[in-house]
Order: sequence, then C-alpha cells, then structure tokens
Amino acid sequence: MEADYALLINTIRHWITVAEEEEAIVHLLFERRTINASDFFLQAGDVCHYVGFVVRGLLRYYILDDGLEHTYDFSAEQSFTCNYESFLTQTPSIRFIQAIEDTQLLVINYRNLQRLYEQLMEGQKFGRLVAEDLFVGMLQKLTSFYKETADERYDTFIRSFPNLQERVPQYVVASYVGIKPQSLSRIRAQRAGKHY
Amino acid sequence: MEADYALLINTIRHWITVAEEEEAIVHLLFERRTINASDFFLQAGDVCHYVGFVVRGLLRYYILDDGLEHTYDFSAEQSFTCNYESFLTQTPSIRFIQAIEDTQLLVINYRNLQRLYEQLMEGQKFGRLVAEDLFVGMLQKLTSFYKETADERYDTFIRSFPNLQERVPQYVVASYVGIKPQSLSRIRAQRAGKHY
Repeated sequence: MEADYALLINTIRHWITVAEEEEAIVHLLFERRTINASDFFLQAGDVCHYVGFVVRGLLRYYILDDGLEHTYDFSAEQSFTCNYESFLTQTPSIRFIQAIEDTQLLVINYRNLQRLYEQLMEGQKFGRLVAEDLFVGMLQKLTSFYKETADERYDTFIRSFPNLQERVPQYVVASYVGIKPQSLSRIRAQRAGKHY
Repeated sequence: MEADYALLINTIRHWITVAEEEEAIVHLLFERRTINASDFFLQAGDVCHYVGFVVRGLLRYYILDDGLEHTYDFSAEQSFTCNYESFLTQTPSIRFIQAIEDTQLLVINYRNLQRLYEQLMEGQKFGRLVAEDLFVGMLQKLTSFYKETADERYDTFIRSFPNLQERVPQYVVASYVGIKPQSLSRIRAQRAGKHY
C-alpha cells in the first residue's frame, strides 16, 4: 500500500528534508518483505544484507551464549531494523533478529542504501545522523547492561518500550532483564503488590 | 605551519573529495592547540567540546575504575581524537584523554564541525563515514576486550599500534592489556626467549 511508503518517508523526515519530487527515489529503492512470527530477519552466521523499516509487527535481537538466548533489543512499528555492524562491514553476524509477531517491512539492500545516500539531497546527512544515533544508543545500551540491577533493567525495558509489555513473551522480557522467568514473575508480583 | 593543515586535508581526503577551493574552509574552522605531556585533552566530568587532529604527539584514552586506570585506546599522528559519545550528546565524559608526549593538534569545536559538514561538498558524507567507522571500531574493541586472553590482547596492541611500542610507557601498555606491569614483563620475556 501507498500508505506504508508514506509512513517510511515520514519517518525519514524526522531526520532530514525529503522534497516531494524525491519520494519516488525512496519508492524505487525500498521493497516489501513479510516475515512470519518466529522466522528470522537475520540469523547468526549470515551477512546482514538489508536495513528494514518496520511497517507492522515486532522483532527482537538476541545473541546465543552457551545455548542461552540473550535478548538485548526490539524493533517495532516505525523503527529501522538491522545488524548495522554486519551490514557496514558485510561480514557474518553474531546476532539473530527474529520476528515476534508477523512482521511487514520495507527493506533496502546495501547497494541501494548507498544510492539513497547519494540521490537524496540530504541523503548523506541522513546516513550521518543515523550512524551517530546508533553509536550513542549502543554505548548507552552497554552502560545499562553493565551497571544496572535486574530491577533497574526491568524499568529500562518499560521506559524504552512502553507499548511492548503486552506483546513480548515473558521469557523474552526475562532474557532482556537478564534473569530467569521465575525471578521476573517475582519482580512483577512485588510491584503489583505495591500498586505500581 | 601550512604543512599541518595540508596533512589534515590530506587525511580528510582518505574519506572524501575536497576541492582545492574548499581548503580555505578547513583552515578557517580548525584552530591550533598544544597539550604538554601528561596534560589532558579531556577529563572525566567535562563535556568534550572538540574533535582534534593529531599533527605531532601521542594521546591515550582511559577510564578510572575504583582508582585503577584502564587504558583502552591511543591516538597518534594523523589520527583524530575525541570522546565521540560526549561530543555528540554534549554531556559530561566518563573518559580521560591524556597526552603521553607533547602533542600538537588542529581542533574543531562542535558548532564548526556542523559547519564543516554543511559547507564542504561532501561534508555530510565525511561525517557519515567517520561515524560508521567509529561504530564498527568500537564494537571490535569491545569484542577484543571481552574475548581475548592477555597474550592475545598484547598481540592486538602490537598489531593495532605497530609504531607505539617504544613510545608508550610499560605501565600504560599493561593497563591496555589488562594485566599488572610484572605480568607484562613476563609475557615480553617469554617472547624474547622464543625469538618472536
């Protein structure tokens, strides 16, 4: 639908000016993709060839460590999804990006993203602002992982993803907080008791 | 000296095209600064207001953790120096950047860097490529810190900074490798014995 591209262009306009006559470039360079719930946008071992814009649905990012899944991020509607490290270097990912719900995306491959940077008037600026944002976001995420207690991590989850509490399975929330599902139930029960 | 600006422009040209008539913009936006050995380019608690280009000299990056210095990076001739996180967000740094030798820099402040991005034909592209590079570099550094043994970290130091072995004090190398100076001496003695 046309509306999906309008949503994408609107999101790009949070960063830069996109002239009306440039909208066709975005149409041309992004294509549709659907990923069913529990299927993968990216699997460890594969190179990340696409940046995706989430039109509908929800994805999670995780790493496998000794057979344990560590969820560390989510992408929902109107956000971009990518393993930027694998994408930039075009080397195999160590991370998984998996759909939690049936997810509809507009995706752009590496070559076309370079075209977008070159063909939009402010394309390079868009790339710079996104890269800067991802840089800062990653450092803040890392600080959060190393400094926060389980309770604080749960607060971080609620604050960072206020609309996802009902949509993310509890074992995934627990893996994000870095605790067992039982411990998460305990935290939630305590808070319910305290009328949070 | 004119030669210092030529060196800077030459380095920028590793990333983007700078037309001859654009060289004056670079001259105008970067200014000279000298930092004596053991003085600071940036101290924890201060906001990083400048990106520096090292003309001559050497700087190290470290964090203080429970009174212990953890050196995690160096900037030598023809490299840029900055706490990019503090600079981008204009919030206080948790990192120190200290001159190991008397260091001459060309520095640009936040406002002027935005001007550089806007006024050079490929300024935004320069900003994008630098941000992407720093993003990937930081992730690789993190992986190295968490996965490598002391022996491997020492190899990483030698590989990453092949010309700095004679210029960096041993206690700083030890703090980069993450071991005590005595343990570093042991590693070096073992290697000398094996004719590495």
